[in-house]
This record gives sequence, structure tokens and C-alpha cells, in this order.
Amino acid sequence: MVRQSLRERVNGHSGQLIPRGETRMGGGGQRYGESTGGPNPLVVNVSARHVHVTPDHLEQLFGPGARLTKMKDLYQEGEFASEQQVNLIGPRSRMIPSIRILGPTRDYTQVELSYTDGVFLGIDLPLRISGNHEGTPGGVLVGPHGAVNLDRGIIRAERHVHMHPDDAAHYGVQDQGYMKLKIDGPCGVVFENVKVRVHPKVKLEVHIDTDEGNTCHLPTATHMELLRD
Amino acid sequence: MVRQSLRERVNGHSGQLIPRGETRMGGGGQRYGESTGGPNPLVVNVSARHVHVTPDHLEQLFGPGARLTKMKDLYQEGEFASEQQVNLIGPRSRMIPSIRILGPTRDYTQVELSYTDGVFLGIDLPLRISGNHEGTPGGVLVGPHGAVNLDRGIIRAERHVHMHPDDAAHYGVQDQGYMKLKIDGPCGVVFENVKVRVHPKVKLEVHIDTDEGNTCHLPTATHMELLRD
Repeated sequence: MVRQSLRERVNGHSGQLIPRGETRMGGGGQRYGESTGGPNPLVVNVSARHVHVTPDHLEQLFGPGARLTKMKDLYQEGEFASEQQVNLIGPRSRMIPSIRILGPTRDYTQVELSYTDGVFLGIDLPLRISGNHEGTPGGVLVGPHGAVNLDRGIIRAERHVHMHPDDAAHYGVQDQGYMKLKIDGPCGVVFENVKVRVHPKVKLEVHIDTDEGNTCHLPTATHMELLRD
Repeated sequence: MVRQSLRERVNGHSGQLIPRGETRMGGGGQRYGESTGGPNPLVVNVSARHVHVTPDHLEQLFGPGARLTKMKDLYQEGEFASEQQVNLIGPRSRMIPSIRILGPTRDYTQVELSYTDGVFLGIDLPLRISGNHEGTPGGVLVGPHGAVNLDRGIIRAERHVHMHPDDAAHYGVQDQGYMKLKIDGPCGVVFENVKVRVHPKVKLEVHIDTDEGNTCHLPTATHMELLRD
């Protein structure tokens, strides 16, 4: 995975699709935004594979006293891509190297991969919302100081949209409900089952993974829109 | 990329989604089918990265007199995955190994990759229908006998549906038109801009690539349907 160039483009029909900076989680992040008429612009972020860790696991991987150091702020306040990266070893001894840790630390360790990654590793990834690890597979994380045997926590993140209560009111949707995300362009797609997650501290932002981002190819998209289910 | 297990499943709502065998082009092919009420079942095939070659290029890659040998029949009559595989080297000297050649030979050489592959190689892949190579990038193919310097022909295949004239009549669509493909399930997606290609010698079959296949995850799909644009 390498950094994809971001190009500004103007929607020929009804608005403007604007690269909103870039996250380099694992090297593959892309972020695009567009006005909605609501309180916040619609931002779609393609999340490359990444890891969340507990403080204990961080120390096992990077040594006693280790703390995450910020490489880059993410779109949501307080979230950041860290300088730290780990290697993941799967059940067939295949490895995905250099998976970036996103901060801050959490009360669980979680690895978010695409199905493309799952096929490579030989893991049948369960589709989950962050933190729901019941029955999920594990693996081995390896850092410069040591390894962590994860007994669970490897998932494909369910596509979702973070929104402020004002955005939820604008769209007329509830927390834990579902919406559709329509992307127009040569590789146009409607993503069904986009889970709504409402929280007063967040800005409107859709998270899709790299398989989904490559399917709709945001660099050539002309318009994007959230639709009620 | 490894072989994904295919599991039979029954649609809980209105029909049956049946694995229709498997293509192992590059190792990642999947094929699913469902009744449509029309003359043919709807078959959706996830095409892994693959190569088509001219007879001349085949000899440059595999030696004088080389002929493609069949590993497995594909769904369309006369099409097959060959035993032969080649390596592709891109502009940054990154290589994708063991890309399967599909037969029979053609009057052009073409490499069909996903955007995930394009990001890995550092190629900004153009979206094209087979054989339209104007302005497309090239690369180096390497076989056991020698290399071919391709000056063009590396594409992302535009998602498309092959259909017999009877299927086109059933759906009320024309050759070169567009349809939508709706996949229901936990990773439900509507693919827009599915190009229609009508020919009297083909059976109804949609081709999507591995990014698209991983996005909608056919092993957990419950229903699929072609819709008029």
C-alpha cells in the first residue's frame, strides 16, 4: 500500500468534492468531503488497516513506559495516527508488516483489516463494530520490544458513519440505525448498511475500508450523499 | 491471495444463492448464481487479477511453439484458466508474481488488475472495457523463457455483464448500455455503471474484480439482482 495522490476536483453537477487532507494509517488513507446542507460537511474517510492497543499491550510491544507518539492528527478531535507500527502474524505464518497504531490507547486491543487482508492471512474475518469481539479470531502482534498473543480482536470494521446529534437530527436518523452512502462517478456505488453512531463529541464522518474505497474510487467520484434507509 | 472457501447458503427471503464452481485465476476467483425468472440464471463472477496474451507474446514468455494448456474451464464456453502464469513488474520495480493467463490467446495482450494492485505497483489504473488500450500504461511481463515490454494494456476492467440477446430482451437493455447490480447481505452494495455486453455466444454473467467482490462479500450475500438503470 502506498500513498495515493489526492487531486482536487469539481463536481460537474451539484457541488464540490474536496480532498480534506490525508491520513497515512498504514499508508493508504484518503479523505474526501462535500457540503450536505446540514450542520457539517459530509466527510468520507478510507481507513487503511490499523490497530488499537491497550496501554499494557503497548508496553509489551514497545517496552516498559512506552507511550504513543503522534505522527498526524485524524479528523475526529483527539484521535491521531501514531508513529508506532506493529507486525501481525496470522494462522498460516503469513505476516502483514508495519500496521499503524491509532491513538489514544483504548481499553481493548483491536486489529481492523480488509477482506483482502483476511484472504492473504487465511482468516475468515467477522464483520463487527469496534469493541465487539465476542467470537472474533486472534493472532500475534510483534513490536520491537516483544510480542502479544491476541486471543481475539481481529475484525473487518462494519462500515459506519460518526455523527453529532445535530447531524442525526438533520438526517432524521437514530444512533445504531442504518443509512446508505451513495457515491457517483465512473465507479459509482451505493453502500447499504452504513451503521449510524451518534456522539456529541464527533463530527460527521463516514469510515469505509480500502476494499470499499478502491471499489468506488473517490479520486474520480463526482458526488457523494448519505441517504436514509 | 488464496482460495476462499465456498459455502452453499439459502436466501432467507426470496430465492437461493448458489456457488457455481470456482475459477482459480490468480487464486482468488469466486462465482455465485441465482435464478432471475429470465432465460438464464444470474451468475456473478469475482475475477482475480489475470492476463490475456497474443500468440507472439506467449512464445516470448514461454518459448518457441508455446501453447496455452488448460487448467480449468471458465463459465463462458471456450474460455479457460491456463496452467501458465507470468510475473508483472511495475514502474517502481515492484512485482506481482504468478498472474494467471486466461485462454484462448487474443489479438492483444492485456493485464487486468484491481485498484489495490495498482496502489501496490504505483500505477494509476485507467478504467476500461477489454481491448480499449488507448493511453493505458504498460509494464514488463516476465515468464520462464523471457520478458515482454508492454507499452500499454494494463487496466482495471470496467464492471460489466455478458448477456445473450434473450437476456437483453428479458431485461429490456441494449448492448453497451448500463445496469445496476444489487447485492443484499451484511455487506450489501448496489454497483452502478455495470456495462452491458450482448453477444449470441455468451451466457448471463457479471464480472466484478476482487476489490468489488471483497466489498460486497458474496459468501454472506443473501440475494443478488440486476436492475435497469
